[in-house]
Amino acid sequence: MPSINAKTRLCAVFGHPVAHSLSPEIHNAAFEAAGLPFAYVAHDVEPGRVSVALEGIRVMGYRGLSVTIPHKVEALEAVDEVDETAKVIGCINTVVNDNGRLLGYNSDGLGALGALRQADADPEGSRTLVIGSGGAARAIAVTISREAPPKEMTILGIEAAELDRLANDVRAKGKTHVVAKALDATSLSEAIAHADIVIHGTPIGMHPNEGKSLVPAESLHSGLAVFDAVYNPRHTRLLEDAARAGCRTIPGVEMFLGQAYVQFELWTGQPAPREVMRKVVEEKL
Amino acid sequence: MPSINAKTRLCAVFGHPVAHSLSPEIHNAAFEAAGLPFAYVAHDVEPGRVSVALEGIRVMGYRGLSVTIPHKVEALEAVDEVDETAKVIGCINTVVNDNGRLLGYNSDGLGALGALRQADADPEGSRTLVIGSGGAARAIAVTISREAPPKEMTILGIEAAELDRLANDVRAKGKTHVVAKALDATSLSEAIAHADIVIHGTPIGMHPNEGKSLVPAESLHSGLAVFDAVYNPRHTRLLEDAARAGCRTIPGVEMFLGQAYVQFELWTGQPAPREVMRKVVEEKL
Repeated sequence: MPSINAKTRLCAVFGHPVAHSLSPEIHNAAFEAAGLPFAYVAHDVEPGRVSVALEGIRVMGYRGLSVTIPHKVEALEAVDEVDETAKVIGCINTVVNDNGRLLGYNSDGLGALGALRQADADPEGSRTLVIGSGGAARAIAVTISREAPPKEMTILGIEAAELDRLANDVRAKGKTHVVAKALDATSLSEAIAHADIVIHGTPIGMHPNEGKSLVPAESLHSGLAVFDAVYNPRHTRLLEDAARAGCRTIPGVEMFLGQAYVQFELWTGQPAPREVMRKVVEEKL
Repeated sequence: MPSINAKTRLCAVFGHPVAHSLSPEIHNAAFEAAGLPFAYVAHDVEPGRVSVALEGIRVMGYRGLSVTIPHKVEALEAVDEVDETAKVIGCINTVVNDNGRLLGYNSDGLGALGALRQADADPEGSRTLVIGSGGAARAIAVTISREAPPKEMTILGIEAAELDRLANDVRAKGKTHVVAKALDATSLSEAIAHADIVIHGTPIGMHPNEGKSLVPAESLHSGLAVFDAVYNPRHTRLLEDAARAGCRTIPGVEMFLGQAYVQFELWTGQPAPREVMRKVVEEKL
């Protein structure tokens, strides 16, 4: 824990509830390892009060925020300026207080992108399959379509309206060719057969429904990189099947870590001490 | 430094400037010694923005605040409820967030009172002389007139309007007999001759004018307890003269410590770990 004095700069997470958040431990360990005069706290803010709390952090001189459920949309609406990619995603998870001007970002998709690149699976120029069209899938699909555009992105989903909206937004604001289809056994097998990278963004496999996978094990092939946004449990059925099929696998915890690295770098302007942050997550998750 | 996690309760000081404040070190050491899941930070809040910042601490769930110059009046006007003694003083230096309701207190006078009692100089029933009518003198005179009323309180000042206002407020809201006079050599010698306790609340003797004292050394007598609100330097000319005359002496740093003890107790409901707090002040001042 860095010691706090009157010159310490503050960052915080806004959530509701927030008592389970690991972010204070992760970021405080990082600030201390980097020798920076920063500290990180947690605030439980009730829905509807985010703009009041943001005015508070502006006049109290906080350096930045993490924003988590259920405040990601309310925060986007209340900051002064929103990063273009975050605007397309439709929510923010990061605020930077730039001398009283509050800037909103979404580091979730960047976290996944960083994890893919770290695993030597850069989406740029690839054929990428995104399974799902909800929050996690949307953040990842929008971000990589703009920051590391695949030559083709297939998005499979079961919620038709949500899928259409995501596909249209990626077409309009991304730099990739988009194919969107209803998710079923056939569309899934076909898409996997032609993919380099599979990004799973649905809740299937997540606690309390662990042990399940949307993706038939026999469809997986050794050329694939498979990312699973689910991180509880850390080793999902999908990742086990993928490892057995010889795929590179990227667990969801890497996205969680990756978004925290991006936040640290936005607030401090310095490279995140990644191993320190990873160690906290390994110990606490 | 207590380690911070998502359940840590936050307290802070509001000031402008605030970078010189010792309060984070003092209160963090106290929280850690008491084993409490609290942490204390500093916020530089610009004048005019205190009510916005207070709304922030309300919705972010801070437990409490210290309020320092220049925000003590603005904060009084913005909280939900003000303690009666603080109302008479006319400013607050402490806020307690009682489940979203912000309560204002002034612990400065209580800090001085605690220091007097600690030195076996309880003002209750005594003849107390207060020298000065500015902020420090006012907080002390009002507080002891209500909480530990002397049988007689003499107040000497040079600012006639300020002195009248203080004397009238103590008459109206305190429980002591008040004599207020213009401060000069004659009134001072007379008042000291009849006093049990002398409270010096003017800036005379304070850095950068150390080495001076309003009180002629020859007027001091061994029956007196002498408190000097000046704490920079820690050993003033007045206290040196008083010690030489055989008086009990109470340095201004005891008031600073005393107000911090009261704040700690208001926020946590537990006795302050006084020796730990004193040690931080001894090291840092």
